[in-house]
Amino acid sequence: MAQSQKPDPKLREQITGLATRAARAALALGDLDTATKNAWILRSAELLEASKAEILEANRLDQEEARNKEVPAPLVNRLSIADGKWDNMIAGLHDVAALRDPVGEVTDSHLRPNGLRVARMRIPLGVIAMIYESRPNVTVDAAALCIKAGNAVILRGGSEAFHTNQALAKVLRKAARETGVPEDAIAVVDTTDRAAIDILLKLNREIDLLIPRGGAGLIRKVMENSTIPVICHDEGICHIFIDASADAKMATEIILDSKLRQLAVCNALETLLVHRDASERVLPRVLKALHEEGVEIRGDRATCDVFSEARPVSDEDWATEYLDKILAVKVVDDFDSAIAHIREFGSDHTEIIITNDHANGVAWQRRVNSSTVGINCSTAFADGFRLGLGAEIGISTSKLHAFGPMGLEGLTTRKFILTGEGQLGE
Amino acid sequence: MAQSQKPDPKLREQITGLATRAARAALALGDLDTATKNAWILRSAELLEASKAEILEANRLDQEEARNKEVPAPLVNRLSIADGKWDNMIAGLHDVAALRDPVGEVTDSHLRPNGLRVARMRIPLGVIAMIYESRPNVTVDAAALCIKAGNAVILRGGSEAFHTNQALAKVLRKAARETGVPEDAIAVVDTTDRAAIDILLKLNREIDLLIPRGGAGLIRKVMENSTIPVICHDEGICHIFIDASADAKMATEIILDSKLRQLAVCNALETLLVHRDASERVLPRVLKALHEEGVEIRGDRATCDVFSEARPVSDEDWATEYLDKILAVKVVDDFDSAIAHIREFGSDHTEIIITNDHANGVAWQRRVNSSTVGINCSTAFADGFRLGLGAEIGISTSKLHAFGPMGLEGLTTRKFILTGEGQLGE
Repeated sequence: MAQSQKPDPKLREQITGLATRAARAALALGDLDTATKNAWILRSAELLEASKAEILEANRLDQEEARNKEVPAPLVNRLSIADGKWDNMIAGLHDVAALRDPVGEVTDSHLRPNGLRVARMRIPLGVIAMIYESRPNVTVDAAALCIKAGNAVILRGGSEAFHTNQALAKVLRKAARETGVPEDAIAVVDTTDRAAIDILLKLNREIDLLIPRGGAGLIRKVMENSTIPVICHDEGICHIFIDASADAKMATEIILDSKLRQLAVCNALETLLVHRDASERVLPRVLKALHEEGVEIRGDRATCDVFSEARPVSDEDWATEYLDKILAVKVVDDFDSAIAHIREFGSDHTEIIITNDHANGVAWQRRVNSSTVGINCSTAFADGFRLGLGAEIGISTSKLHAFGPMGLEGLTTRKFILTGEGQLGE
Repeated sequence: MAQSQKPDPKLREQITGLATRAARAALALGDLDTATKNAWILRSAELLEASKAEILEANRLDQEEARNKEVPAPLVNRLSIADGKWDNMIAGLHDVAALRDPVGEVTDSHLRPNGLRVARMRIPLGVIAMIYESRPNVTVDAAALCIKAGNAVILRGGSEAFHTNQALAKVLRKAARETGVPEDAIAVVDTTDRAAIDILLKLNREIDLLIPRGGAGLIRKVMENSTIPVICHDEGICHIFIDASADAKMATEIILDSKLRQLAVCNALETLLVHRDASERVLPRVLKALHEEGVEIRGDRATCDVFSEARPVSDEDWATEYLDKILAVKVVDDFDSAIAHIREFGSDHTEIIITNDHANGVAWQRRVNSSTVGINCSTAFADGFRLGLGAEIGISTSKLHAFGPMGLEGLTTRKFILTGEGQLGE
């Protein structure tokens, strides 16, 4: 990525002003009660429906411009918020309104020996900036989650979705004015100038958390240049390990689901590891089923020996997130070799063992330190909705604060609250 | 701070090698049982005692060099680890050994509607780098806490404490070799070249968390240049608010304790806010007691009106962490004005209300979003030991991950563990 030019002062003033107003709004937002925040969410849903024609027209314009710029068809399709995506977006708002408000929750209350009561109270983080590419529904989803957790939000979507994002934001801000939420709490960067991002990344006085969602280039840029704490939603090189004792039928079903349910998601299966003692009994059946679904198998020598349709794998494959109908397959000597492979090539995302051996299952959960580690289930469960978090701002690959699927709780922090009767330090 | 020169390749190789070995050691460390980690801690205590003469000689040398460089006497004294400080350091090791091991703790276990069991398991972060100034006991304290939480640690102490830190580290690594802990898990940067810090700050592949402890210059440098997640231990501009209903005797005792117990700590009181209705009844008694202890009072006009020894305060005072026998005092019109002042000038550290009004106490705890917020107690309770965390790596002023006093738990993260019977995504 080319070094950015020094941003012009006018743009700096514009972006800094937006962030300063968001920080001021965040103070008011922390004091808002749940009913007001929910009223904003539900009014947003109503106003979005009422403005649907206008928003879809903006969305059509974005797609047309993308086609003219010869953006590949799958990426143009990702821009669309019509039909089912629209309905999901609206349903998502109702879901977030129904979630329990995390702000003000008190836990860990206990009395110290000197009579001082100590507890933790959950509070908003302040101002959260989201920098994301494509998928304009993120504008609505992220705003709802951030505001529900009491935060102001600064949204900087992809330039391809500019018109859609502006149209959506206009409605969200109108709903804010109508329901007593400070409209500056929903700040949308209204320029496609990439220099705006460079400015945002340095506003650590105004912004408390930065969440980049997008390609590796964006995430690297943010990590390397931000002075604000960052939670990344980076790639997932997810593994399944077929243990010696695995049930062949269960392995086949789980692996098909993990690879094919959705190809272009970070929790999709990318590398299959197989215990040597299961390679003849289980592997051919699994690979045959995948191959019939059009999945290209890239295997090590032992894999090619038991499945002749496999192509030879290269070292690069182990570190590749395909997001496509391709699977890398390796036969390993034992349980420890599977763990060693994941430690060398994994991305700390999602790793599943298929086993009937209790000790190996427990050891897997204990020793594999990825954000989601499971026994006998699909990698699809690395997902906030499927894990019961109620909603998901994304899947964090950062170990700090929120590791793995990240819901409302990840958009808050906790303070210590003390209740005394004159206690002094000892 | 001057822009650093490009570090020489040899130094880069040295620091990168140290971090790579620490990252490898961290993998082994995550698998260690509690007994082995505790054995290392207790053996370290024994070996430190056995090498006491040698270590104190290194410590004497550091102090002598500091005196020769005309370092101010209080800073030279902070370098000392003799007498009570030595005993505290050894006692601290026994305390950490006695703490419950957070690694492997399972919480939030529940069954999803489809029968999948979901829980969270606490795991180490990986590699933690501490960059700190003075106080060489941090070398021992921080190493013990990081290793107990299953992390490898990279320590970069101040150049003034170089000989002491090297002597301490030698003992800690010897104890590691004797007890089966990988010695590379305790990595000490063995150069005083400041370029080593610039290199460390960019090793985000090897290091998972960076904790700077020191002056504002160090913290700014780390925040602005690190590509690694940072948890800052920054300044505390702590406030006490005397509400209209405050008990005068309790107010006096709490304020004396908060200001004078220790002057140069981040949880010391720096600004006193007083409700107008308490300014004549309570304030003179409080200020007289402080003044008798040699505290300089800098007050706004209303303060000077009720206490003639007060000097006029300037706007700059509200944003100053004195760490000295000075107190800024302001009379405010009401409860909301007190909160507004803290939101404008505070550092999100510690704020205490002294009140007999239940509603105001509750509103204070709810609305003031600093890391420690209390009713009727000393600011001294913003402290991991006094809050019952068992130990303290410091007091975080970062909102993410650990906000406020930070113990063993802050040195870990949590993964999702799933136990299924063949569940697929829905």
